[in-house]
Amino acid sequence: MTENPNPTPSSAALTVAAIADLVGGRWKGDANLEVLALEPVDEAGPRDMAFLAARRYAQHVPDCAAAAYLVSEEMEKHLPEDATRVVVSDPYPAMRTLLQVLHPPTAWTAGVHPTAILGSDVGVGVGVEIGPYAVLGDGVCVGDGSRIGAHCVISRGSVIGAGCRLYPHVVLYEETTLGDRVIVHAGARLGSDGFGYTLIDGEHMKMPQVGRCIIDDDVEIGANSTIDRGSLGDTRIGHGVKLDNLVHVAHNVHIGARSLLAALVGIAGSTRIGRGVWFGGQSGAINQLEIGDGAQVTVQTGVTRDLAPGETVSGIPSRPHREYLRTQAQISRLPKLVERVQRLELDRSHDSDG
Amino acid sequence: MTENPNPTPSSAALTVAAIADLVGGRWKGDANLEVLALEPVDEAGPRDMAFLAARRYAQHVPDCAAAAYLVSEEMEKHLPEDATRVVVSDPYPAMRTLLQVLHPPTAWTAGVHPTAILGSDVGVGVGVEIGPYAVLGDGVCVGDGSRIGAHCVISRGSVIGAGCRLYPHVVLYEETTLGDRVIVHAGARLGSDGFGYTLIDGEHMKMPQVGRCIIDDDVEIGANSTIDRGSLGDTRIGHGVKLDNLVHVAHNVHIGARSLLAALVGIAGSTRIGRGVWFGGQSGAINQLEIGDGAQVTVQTGVTRDLAPGETVSGIPSRPHREYLRTQAQISRLPKLVERVQRLELDRSHDSDG
Amino acid sequence: MTENPNPTPSSAALTVAAIADLVGGRWKGDANLEVLALEPVDEAGPRDMAFLAARRYAQHVPDCAAAAYLVSEEMEKHLPEDATRVVVSDPYPAMRTLLQVLHPPTAWTAGVHPTAILGSDVGVGVGVEIGPYAVLGDGVCVGDGSRIGAHCVISRGSVIGAGCRLYPHVVLYEETTLGDRVIVHAGARLGSDGFGYTLIDGEHMKMPQVGRCIIDDDVEIGANSTIDRGSLGDTRIGHGVKLDNLVHVAHNVHIGARSLLAALVGIAGSTRIGRGVWFGGQSGAINQLEIGDGAQVTVQTGVTRDLAPGETVSGIPSRPHREYLRTQAQISRLPKLVERVQRLELDRSHDSDG
Repeated sequence: MTENPNPTPSSAALTVAAIADLVGGRWKGDANLEVLALEPVDEAGPRDMAFLAARRYAQHVPDCAAAAYLVSEEMEKHLPEDATRVVVSDPYPAMRTLLQVLHPPTAWTAGVHPTAILGSDVGVGVGVEIGPYAVLGDGVCVGDGSRIGAHCVISRGSVIGAGCRLYPHVVLYEETTLGDRVIVHAGARLGSDGFGYTLIDGEHMKMPQVGRCIIDDDVEIGANSTIDRGSLGDTRIGHGVKLDNLVHVAHNVHIGARSLLAALVGIAGSTRIGRGVWFGGQSGAINQLEIGDGAQVTVQTGVTRDLAPGETVSGIPSRPHREYLRTQAQISRLPKLVERVQRLELDRSHDSDG
Repeated sequence: MTENPNPTPSSAALTVAAIADLVGGRWKGDANLEVLALEPVDEAGPRDMAFLAARRYAQHVPDCAAAAYLVSEEMEKHLPEDATRVVVSDPYPAMRTLLQVLHPPTAWTAGVHPTAILGSDVGVGVGVEIGPYAVLGDGVCVGDGSRIGAHCVISRGSVIGAGCRLYPHVVLYEETTLGDRVIVHAGARLGSDGFGYTLIDGEHMKMPQVGRCIIDDDVEIGANSTIDRGSLGDTRIGHGVKLDNLVHVAHNVHIGARSLLAALVGIAGSTRIGRGVWFGGQSGAINQLEIGDGAQVTVQTGVTRDLAPGETVSGIPSRPHREYLRTQAQISRLPKLVERVQRLELDRSHDSDG
Repeated sequence: MTENPNPTPSSAALTVAAIADLVGGRWKGDANLEVLALEPVDEAGPRDMAFLAARRYAQHVPDCAAAAYLVSEEMEKHLPEDATRVVVSDPYPAMRTLLQVLHPPTAWTAGVHPTAILGSDVGVGVGVEIGPYAVLGDGVCVGDGSRIGAHCVISRGSVIGAGCRLYPHVVLYEETTLGDRVIVHAGARLGSDGFGYTLIDGEHMKMPQVGRCIIDDDVEIGANSTIDRGSLGDTRIGHGVKLDNLVHVAHNVHIGARSLLAALVGIAGSTRIGRGVWFGGQSGAINQLEIGDGAQVTVQTGVTRDLAPGETVSGIPSRPHREYLRTQAQISRLPKLVERVQRLELDRSHDSDG
């Protein structure tokens, strides 16, 4: 394969002193050294600053060709004595600040692409970008500074707040509402019909799905995720919630502020998730549960009962995490337990014989 | 965030007496009271009828502002004595009937959007809608009254029956066949290549996937679900089957009539699923199994062997549900069992000492 | 439902002798017999050749109407004495060869569809097809003989090698790179942002995702799968890797050559997967693991620790496969173990009484 010979350049170089100033860190070594990019320790080249915040990456330091390091106080001891560095107490916010300067957002131009199709009574705010082949139904509103990617379909009556970004190929069903600064990745489907049927004469007859899908401010939704509209009443995703890729949220689910759902999670109908909850990858919850604030659901766990605030659970079906660990340990020791019972039986039979 | 100030109005108001008549129920209270919408008990306002059919929602009745209730006979006792109500024996079909009147389907207009691209020999029935930017390949047929959403791609030789609805962004690969009244949600991919390779000289070489994907009447397919075409022979989805979102059905799977697959289910190649089978969310089946009619696969279960008709299974790997429950209970009591063995050993060692 | 009355004809008929010659097998019976298609034993008609390579299908031979068989040496004994056949030692490569002749790729025409939108500095090789409504951003390069399906969005700076096929509705985010002969199925999203946030003042703040998504030669990616770009550093999919439908690969994952990931698999951030690894359907791996070359992860397994080369693991959490089988067997026998302990206790209490 051939790689791109001319990758898009990032912004101009920054000196080590400027970076220390930017991220609120202290520098050591050559303050005037310039770097072009921030890279992982095992991939950084001689014009890069290497990022070191996790013990796992310390092993690559001896072979690292980086000009300098952005390093946490804890990990600084793993650097060679003479390495140029910027040292910070909290490395991830520092990394975020630096990357925002090194990789400023790509320039874009407000405007409605001539191939976009807008229905009647569409309201478009100031500084909005609507990409090629986007289709906006009647009565759609798009807030100031929002960007609608190529091929998005925003169905009748949907409302998009200010400062949103919809990547290409997003579909909003009718009357879906997004708050401000919502990011929706390619292929997400919001407001689709819930999985609701009622048996009539032995056939599954579709229940009309007449609720809405309402997404609050600062939510981010991953690629190809799906959030169903409510059947009766609405599906609601709270402020600052983040969903990873391929997540499924069923009809009438409510998710509280700042909860995080990792990839391939599935939440069944009408379950209410509190604030600051974590669902690990491929975990799920059955319908009509109450998941308390701050609950932690580890990867591939299946929640089948209500969770108290702050509870951590694991396993299928889910158990309190400590109980789960103890049980797992005892399952591992089952072969030994069987042997111990066997010995007791042998002793017993020996006694009887004797 | 700002919500839509002008949500689309539903149809005109209905009186309590008219609703009782419509759903075949009896009314009590103010027969002339008018309601605009049906809502859940915990969301209904003073111009709404609240729906009460599950014990879980009875707790919200004291705070409910609804004008009236649609209530099952069983739950009627949870209402205040003087609440206006319509009482029915079978609440979900009644809800369905009422919603169909309160939320009639949005008006749409038959016709081929000028931006749609139709190949040669495309057959379009009477009263068909083909949305903006849809692409129909050579030889595609679309039956009377079907609606093809914006951006759908219907590849060469595919056949869509009458009364179907394809939401935006659906892709049918070549020669896919849909029956009548099939609903396909946004982003579903039907007829994609199966995951089939054969090792030749150490490389996985792609097997041509030459079978078809055939969907029978009255099937509904959820958003972003994928159904592969057959490799040799066809993949077949039977009459009235319903798939939720993000479901994967592999090559050459057959699914019998009226089976239901919840979200994130995966069925591996050539497995044959009977009629009226239920797969709970995130469950799956390995390849080449026979799943009998009416089998029930609970959430997150992994089926690794054939299932008899009517069998209910749980767990990874799946076991008969009762055995699974018993095993789970015994796993929970493992710590106690270990203690009991320990005591026996202690007693034994005490005996020996003595 | 009505099936397509005129399915696309496959190529002309082949004689049994010609097929034997083509696949390097020996024939028996009527060498001049002509067949039109290869079909499974339980679906083959009187103008078809039936394919028999698995014991499971031998039961259908007595009712099979096929004109002739393509059969493995091992399965030949299941045929009637007088059945015309082509016998091969390695049936799947033979099937592949025969299907390639019976079902030659559909004809297509190079060219850029007039509705495709190309940005500035787009490089298009010789014999490239770009479908209707495709959108290619600035600086995109497409290698010779590649086909970009309808509605694909190839964002700025992305590079597609030679001989690739992108089915409709694929999205490549900015600066995504595909090698040669890469196949990407409908709805796959490559280079989307990873799930990366850092807590600042109690809010999850988005980390810029500045790495790339780099796909090597001969990779195939299933429908609606998602591969995130790197956060720092790149996500890399190695030579000849095959991903099934609805697979999630997170930021900074590396997958070694010829690994296979079945449907609904999820791989969390920064995990490194070796060469020739197998992940069964709905299995997953947590972040920052090292999975050795040739490791085998069975269906619905959850990998939570590094795997040695060649290791086979099962279960949630994953254990060595043999230990898993032994443990499963002992879990099945738990009720008996409980009884045995009970008897020992009874005997013991009897002793004490006596």
